[in-house]
Amino acid sequence: MRNSRRGAVDPFIVMDVMEAARAAEAAGRHIIHMEVGQPGTPAPQGARDALVQAMQTDALGYTVALGLPALRARIARLYGEWYGVDLDPARVVVTSGSSGAFILAFTALFDSGDKVGIGAPGYPSYRQILRALGLQPVDLPTSAANRFQPVAADFAGLDLAGLMVASPANPTGTMLDRDALAALIHAAQGAGAAFISDEIYHGIEYEAKAVTALEISDDVYVINSFSKYFSMTGWRVGWMVVPPDHVRIIERIAQNMFICPPHASQIAALAAMECEAELQANMDVYRENRRLMLEGLPRAGFDRIAPPDGAFYVYADVSDLTDDSRAFAAEILDKAGVAVTPGLDFDPVRGGGTLRFSYARATADIVEGLARLQRFMAARG
Amino acid sequence: MRNSRRGAVDPFIVMDVMEAARAAEAAGRHIIHMEVGQPGTPAPQGARDALVQAMQTDALGYTVALGLPALRARIARLYGEWYGVDLDPARVVVTSGSSGAFILAFTALFDSGDKVGIGAPGYPSYRQILRALGLQPVDLPTSAANRFQPVAADFAGLDLAGLMVASPANPTGTMLDRDALAALIHAAQGAGAAFISDEIYHGIEYEAKAVTALEISDDVYVINSFSKYFSMTGWRVGWMVVPPDHVRIIERIAQNMFICPPHASQIAALAAMECEAELQANMDVYRENRRLMLEGLPRAGFDRIAPPDGAFYVYADVSDLTDDSRAFAAEILDKAGVAVTPGLDFDPVRGGGTLRFSYARATADIVEGLARLQRFMAARG
Repeated sequence: MRNSRRGAVDPFIVMDVMEAARAAEAAGRHIIHMEVGQPGTPAPQGARDALVQAMQTDALGYTVALGLPALRARIARLYGEWYGVDLDPARVVVTSGSSGAFILAFTALFDSGDKVGIGAPGYPSYRQILRALGLQPVDLPTSAANRFQPVAADFAGLDLAGLMVASPANPTGTMLDRDALAALIHAAQGAGAAFISDEIYHGIEYEAKAVTALEISDDVYVINSFSKYFSMTGWRVGWMVVPPDHVRIIERIAQNMFICPPHASQIAALAAMECEAELQANMDVYRENRRLMLEGLPRAGFDRIAPPDGAFYVYADVSDLTDDSRAFAAEILDKAGVAVTPGLDFDPVRGGGTLRFSYARATADIVEGLARLQRFMAARG
Repeated sequence: MRNSRRGAVDPFIVMDVMEAARAAEAAGRHIIHMEVGQPGTPAPQGARDALVQAMQTDALGYTVALGLPALRARIARLYGEWYGVDLDPARVVVTSGSSGAFILAFTALFDSGDKVGIGAPGYPSYRQILRALGLQPVDLPTSAANRFQPVAADFAGLDLAGLMVASPANPTGTMLDRDALAALIHAAQGAGAAFISDEIYHGIEYEAKAVTALEISDDVYVINSFSKYFSMTGWRVGWMVVPPDHVRIIERIAQNMFICPPHASQIAALAAMECEAELQANMDVYRENRRLMLEGLPRAGFDRIAPPDGAFYVYADVSDLTDDSRAFAAEILDKAGVAVTPGLDFDPVRGGGTLRFSYARATADIVEGLARLQRFMAARG
């Protein structure tokens, strides 16, 4: 059967690692998973309890396309609590994960062939979703000096229709401070490019609170999710804040492309927002894991790393060790029994010399993984 | 902020009816809902029980992009049970509702500007999703003589990249029999057009079993859902069967655009497939509702209807009564207290003279709704 050019999406390199890890485990080996980008914890207990309750009393049919009004109102309130921003709930759109938000945002903002700037390294699906929608992703190579975040000079004259940034970023965990974020927003707006801020790691911060683009401008798209801080990856529920004059546009697109986000997940998400104690206990684990990583990775020999401001990743420059991160990740899995992600997924050009280590899982796994990495690197010499 | 042409999606006309119905209810009026396209029943008890159980033992993180292997296998088995078709589970893709399946299918099959034929009247979101993806929907006006389904002559010479049909169809409930479906598939294949079969109302049939496109060819896309027969609209879980050489293409697109369908919904869906007694009890209600509709609508004066083979809709030609179905629906809501859907959502050209009546809800509502319609029409004269 025929197939499209736009659907010819690059494979995730990490899938090979995950498949090799699965095969190793099936063969009886013990593998430490530093490749996964999701918490090991379930949705908070209060979230699950709320759903058990709702399933007894509610048919859980379609919700309205923009999401349950109570959830939209509660999310708006979060902007007051977290950032001191007064947000109209009418501007909050509940989405089928941040994935659904990307599709809605790109569809509302861009036409076929439009160019959208994304930082490299960055979340690989940005590039692939843009291509799948017939748009042109434009990689903006970032530098360690700029903490792997784009700066205005990186897209001057590129005629972008949009600019998308993430803070904290995946794979680096670095954040844009208020001045850097404001400079980017103003440069994008000055160039006529829509500004999209991916804030899905907000809440998972270590040294300073992340800044939301809404502190700087109302004329931006902000995308967030219940997947990370709220520990609800598999529930596929997220949200987006859009300019007031875009709410109706997004509503119509969402009605047609998604009908609504999963109702059960919306019920659970609303309750998750009241589970602060359990979520902060998760944060205590990430905080300890991060401390162990920042101490243990350099000790193993991975010393070219940017301390992550947020998220649960460490991005390491291993270009002194290899120019083939894919083969290097395979070697680490084979010899150390630790699964890690080759940088090629995040930066097709320079990622041959980088690895991403995730510390999203249990602390005992981090301790064991670091010990294995240290032994492996010592033996490698 | 800038916005795209592709995102300029038509509003659903029915939304005005629903908003007016909501306002009337808020003002204390009792409204019968014949506009809604979803069951009033919840997910089967067994489905909800399975999820309660799973939430106690499983973190419910991301699943693999193609869905839980057990669910894919069980869906494949359904094709044996329902149609005698032996289907490889590897060809089954679990999706975020049929909505997610449409996005995946259109992305895998078509490039910007490609023309895709859809029957008119038809599900309005086909047209809007195609446009949102930068594709060109081509309405194929169908006739009552062809039971509102396209025939090969309708798209000869149109240079379509794809043809999408639905059987049973929304809004008419009519089905393609085996010969008619085979003729369409062969004509599409002969013209180099991908054939997509929307089978989301399968299982809700009254006179004869619906035919799946997989009985005729493996070189087709088949889309289905847990929303209708399995009564799980709000759970956003469906599936798609694709040709063997398209599985990897779809997998990569799904990894990037959706990550995975909602995990909780997949757990519930798997258990729903073993709840035959409860699902057949729902069918008994639809069957009785249909009988009442086919008797009561003509008695009220809506006598130009095609008896529906499946689904839970009756599409009525009211062109002898009005050329403005929107105003007519508003009048019916206002004077009869019954919400119905104007045909304009399904057929922008001819829908000014049609209405869709849904009989998805409780039988008592159908009885009362029909009585109100009869009184209204009698008074209208």
